[in-house]
Amino acid sequence: MADSSESLTYAKLPRNTVNRYGKPRGRYDAEMINTIVNTSQVLHVSFPVPDDPFPAMLPMLGFVGSYADASLTLSDPLDLYLHGYISSRLMRLGKSASVSQKEKGKGQEEEKKEEGEGAGEGEGEEHEPSLPLTIAATHLDGLVLALTPNHHSYNYRSAVIHGHAVAVADPAEKLWAMEHITNGVVPERWAHARVPPTRTEMTSTQILRVRIVDASAKVRAGPPGDDRRDMRDGELRARTWIGVVPTWMCYGEPVASPENRCGEVPEHISSFVRRENEAGERNALAAAKGD
Amino acid sequence: MADSSESLTYAKLPRNTVNRYGKPRGRYDAEMINTIVNTSQVLHVSFPVPDDPFPAMLPMLGFVGSYADASLTLSDPLDLYLHGYISSRLMRLGKSASVSQKEKGKGQEEEKKEEGEGAGEGEGEEHEPSLPLTIAATHLDGLVLALTPNHHSYNYRSAVIHGHAVAVADPAEKLWAMEHITNGVVPERWAHARVPPTRTEMTSTQILRVRIVDASAKVRAGPPGDDRRDMRDGELRARTWIGVVPTWMCYGEPVASPENRCGEVPEHISSFVRRENEAGERNALAAAKGD
Repeated sequence: MADSSESLTYAKLPRNTVNRYGKPRGRYDAEMINTIVNTSQVLHVSFPVPDDPFPAMLPMLGFVGSYADASLTLSDPLDLYLHGYISSRLMRLGKSASVSQKEKGKGQEEEKKEEGEGAGEGEGEEHEPSLPLTIAATHLDGLVLALTPNHHSYNYRSAVIHGHAVAVADPAEKLWAMEHITNGVVPERWAHARVPPTRTEMTSTQILRVRIVDASAKVRAGPPGDDRRDMRDGELRARTWIGVVPTWMCYGEPVASPENRCGEVPEHISSFVRRENEAGERNALAAAKGD
Repeated sequence: MADSSESLTYAKLPRNTVNRYGKPRGRYDAEMINTIVNTSQVLHVSFPVPDDPFPAMLPMLGFVGSYADASLTLSDPLDLYLHGYISSRLMRLGKSASVSQKEKGKGQEEEKKEEGEGAGEGEGEEHEPSLPLTIAATHLDGLVLALTPNHHSYNYRSAVIHGHAVAVADPAEKLWAMEHITNGVVPERWAHARVPPTRTEMTSTQILRVRIVDASAKVRAGPPGDDRRDMRDGELRARTWIGVVPTWMCYGEPVASPENRCGEVPEHISSFVRRENEAGERNALAAAKGD
């Protein structure tokens, strides 16, 4: 990251400057962005496809972290890792589209990237193919019901990240990322499954490391806001309920496979379900109240 | 749509042919795709940005429907409508990027589109600016926990749509779309809010109509599948719980705004919350069992 040593925020470029209604809803804080990503079960990943007017878009699994520096926390700019098994097409593109992308992408971002990548790991990868990706992570925290359709809204936390993806070649880094991906679905799951992966599983799994060029987040919380004229309309207010319906991802009672031979649901799963449901509800309620 | 008269499916082009592990997880059925979209509170919308290697990506509200033909159902190919207030940037691009997109996009999609648009409404819009969009709608139905990290997966329903967006100019169509957008958040909400919108609200609201070029869905349901070798490992199976944690969007007890003067939560909201929670849980459980 270009400015990782200077601050805890991702680079702020014109592209990711958020400004709507004059109120800055944007957050450039790395911790906010990283937390939105790492609490998302699904990321949406978009990338240009040669000779196609439509970008490709795929739901994928991923997380932010640093393989090179274990001392970094969610407050630091990190790398984004994506699990590629959902689409071999993306990975093939990542491997073949590199040259044309490198040729084309000599804009400010490339300059910025080169500038910022002098230090740290990844020196050996300068000639690796890379693919420009846009990654979104979105949490819906509530339905905001106002007096008028116009002021209806959502409470949400949303992050959008731009970066260059390369396929991870180092088996140790790949294994590290696979462990994080698995534990991102259910914490401690890796240690409770059959590991390490076989040689075949290692080679058939593909992991992308995305060097983040810039990232931004948008957050809305709190009750609806309405226009003064509508707020002065006593008849309207008496008949129109306003407030927030909190929303969160609910995790149900685990359903054993007919092939399960392990008996009861183990603690690492049941405690995760309990924790997530409590945290989800607590968070959505706090957002509804604007805490 | 090019083939709306022939079948109930969206066009199947190489781009949206889904094939993974040899098992066709793809569904080209219009009803499946349309239902995934219309039960999504949030869509992810991606589009190319001139002179930028990264596609833009925005969470937006939208629905599929037909303004021109009210007799069409979710089994028919429909138009996708997006509410533009989340990003005025997208709409500006839609208005300005038209010429370059039209020049560039003389591929198979453009030909297909022209061919298919001879009949129906929209004649007057042939010279309107349009923007190529990719739209994704994704429902997470469960965490699939297998014996090995490699076979961990999600139960999900995911739709990806490609189409050309134009800004809706006709006030009647715009009003119709605004009503659908509002009722897509909470059914019957439009009739319970202050309507119609003022002239200012009408002009400040922007709606995009997307003519769908192609669309596809992917669905996974059922318990985990593991490799035969792992399934023969009695020790592994005795210590590793396998099954599905069902997941769905939970709607909590509505939280009144401090400014609410309407008293109790009205029926159109409370019954919606109840219905959604019941349907969400029922659906996730059915997916967990592979029903």
